[in-house]
Amino acid sequence: MVIGILGAGQLARMLALAGKPLGLKFIFLDPTPIACAADNGKHLIGDYTDPKLLTQLAEEADIITYEFENVPVEIIDFLSEKTPVYPPAKALSVGQDRITEKNFLQDLGIATAPFKAVSSLEDLQQAMPEIGYPAILKTRRLGYDGKGQVVLKSENDLSNAWQAVKNAPCVIEGFVPFEREVSIIASRSVSGEIAYYPLSENSHDKGILRLAKNTRNDPLQQKAEAYIDTLLKALDYVGTLALELFVVGDTIIANEFAPRVHNSGHWTIEGSETSQFENHLRAITDMPLGSTHSIGYSAMQNFIGGVPASEKLLALAHVHLHLYDKTARKGRKIAHATARTDSAENFADLIKQLSELAAASDDS
Amino acid sequence: MVIGILGAGQLARMLALAGKPLGLKFIFLDPTPIACAADNGKHLIGDYTDPKLLTQLAEEADIITYEFENVPVEIIDFLSEKTPVYPPAKALSVGQDRITEKNFLQDLGIATAPFKAVSSLEDLQQAMPEIGYPAILKTRRLGYDGKGQVVLKSENDLSNAWQAVKNAPCVIEGFVPFEREVSIIASRSVSGEIAYYPLSENSHDKGILRLAKNTRNDPLQQKAEAYIDTLLKALDYVGTLALELFVVGDTIIANEFAPRVHNSGHWTIEGSETSQFENHLRAITDMPLGSTHSIGYSAMQNFIGGVPASEKLLALAHVHLHLYDKTARKGRKIAHATARTDSAENFADLIKQLSELAAASDDS
Repeated sequence: MVIGILGAGQLARMLALAGKPLGLKFIFLDPTPIACAADNGKHLIGDYTDPKLLTQLAEEADIITYEFENVPVEIIDFLSEKTPVYPPAKALSVGQDRITEKNFLQDLGIATAPFKAVSSLEDLQQAMPEIGYPAILKTRRLGYDGKGQVVLKSENDLSNAWQAVKNAPCVIEGFVPFEREVSIIASRSVSGEIAYYPLSENSHDKGILRLAKNTRNDPLQQKAEAYIDTLLKALDYVGTLALELFVVGDTIIANEFAPRVHNSGHWTIEGSETSQFENHLRAITDMPLGSTHSIGYSAMQNFIGGVPASEKLLALAHVHLHLYDKTARKGRKIAHATARTDSAENFADLIKQLSELAAASDDS
Repeated sequence: MVIGILGAGQLARMLALAGKPLGLKFIFLDPTPIACAADNGKHLIGDYTDPKLLTQLAEEADIITYEFENVPVEIIDFLSEKTPVYPPAKALSVGQDRITEKNFLQDLGIATAPFKAVSSLEDLQQAMPEIGYPAILKTRRLGYDGKGQVVLKSENDLSNAWQAVKNAPCVIEGFVPFEREVSIIASRSVSGEIAYYPLSENSHDKGILRLAKNTRNDPLQQKAEAYIDTLLKALDYVGTLALELFVVGDTIIANEFAPRVHNSGHWTIEGSETSQFENHLRAITDMPLGSTHSIGYSAMQNFIGGVPASEKLLALAHVHLHLYDKTARKGRKIAHATARTDSAENFADLIKQLSELAAASDDS
């Protein structure tokens, strides 16, 4: 069976590496001539909107999926006429606009931060008394890794912030005084089977995920599962979905969801019986989902802009290296490493060593 | 860094899948136009003895390795003039002739079955009183998976057996009344670091490995490690090496070694902190070796000639499927599955289920 993937970055690469043992073959559409997933199958080089290449992709693939959430919905509609595409277009159309997304979540009874749509500086000025400071101004569309976001601390920031977002339609969000950032990842198959991963506890810096840690028995696991369960069913979702959450006491508040495998789930490669990548592929090919049972303690460290020498990382017992075969560039995710151990004993030390190595090579 | 591999079968495929996360790229030389590792890198299609292709391989690869032990030593010598080749040619030249191999083992103090070189029916007849019945007649060269082997139960079998081996130079081996067949796998790096895997307990049928099981704390582990340690050093070995052993009481007797990753170590993909494939690559690229710590209980089931439907295998929790993307053909290894669990409790049941599925699809 051939899986078509829109995008040939690291997520597509890890999907392919997980899918080959299942007997799957891969074809990628990506405009970058040297794309890091490309040598795992066939690479169609060209624009995501090129109807000829999209037709070829739909003809050569049995099932199509994507690795990024900004795929125009029309492309999914175009492809779907020939070949099944998962996750469904609805997940994209809801998720691509922060206002639609938040309304959708709230309608499902999933709490979000207070928010308001703003289309002008005047809108923003009017909204602030209700939203309060601090607050975050985000473009409604096309944001990721903290891009298209500005923090507002007081009235004095409004005008500069509005210039920074270049007049784009925005959402102003009240700041959630969170104690922790977590995410829940789950996979749902064509047949409707669902597998939930344990909550991942995530640390960000400069808007980019740095460390993601399997919480194992998080007290909020059940609540988070109930949220993502509702969301999966409301979207008639197929594939792996990630829901980012803020934790305030014993309350969880949804930040946003990503209709794809997610950076905060990379530790599942070593730390779960079945990885998020394999379960995404099992889900879209309608195979039974694999166990998400945790194998010991695990955490993932991202490497941004630079990566320590392999000798150093591989010299740490219990550390697994994942280089993405991408050129180092300021702020670019180019690798990650997962620490996995059977006992909690030296786990914190190991994470510390890994984070120190990451900090020394960081260029974000 | 680019790794060149002679052969593009399932072992090369699993090497590539293990090596990509380490940032390695792959180039394969294999005469089969549709070879199962091929879509993991560049595939040079042609004969292993083609000097033009060998030159290209040596030019494009930084380090060369191989997935089968019948590579002519002259080819290694040819390649080595341009590019390092591991494991070293000595491991091939010793291992390719059963008499040389057994003498080499005995000289190192490693016990073998009684044996004698025979080149004619007369030799065989003369040797039998000393070797005794039952015995196994094996061609000195080019045997694998029980090919080129005939069991001799009495004098009456001699003449037919000699016809079966077609007058090839042979070794006659006394039968070892073994209680168990095990193998030890170890990796040794360019710098001389060694990592040993736990003994694998192996079951064969029709000369082909069926089930390989991580024994974890085998009482013979230390003896086996001492054997392979001696062998690795005597061969000045670099890479992963497998030594097959017979167990009689608390004695171990060497059967043969394989200078490559080995079928009895496939459970290390899920069942060890670092797989035999990753450690082979770490060894030949002179990286620190990874921990061989066992992750729970694991065993591998081979699928010969046929493979159960993926739905059935993936429906078993704790089972990991490895299809090799090879066409089914009588007697051909086309897939394996690994059962891995955290507790011993249902492990035997799981293996039984897996073996029953394998038996139902078997065509060997």
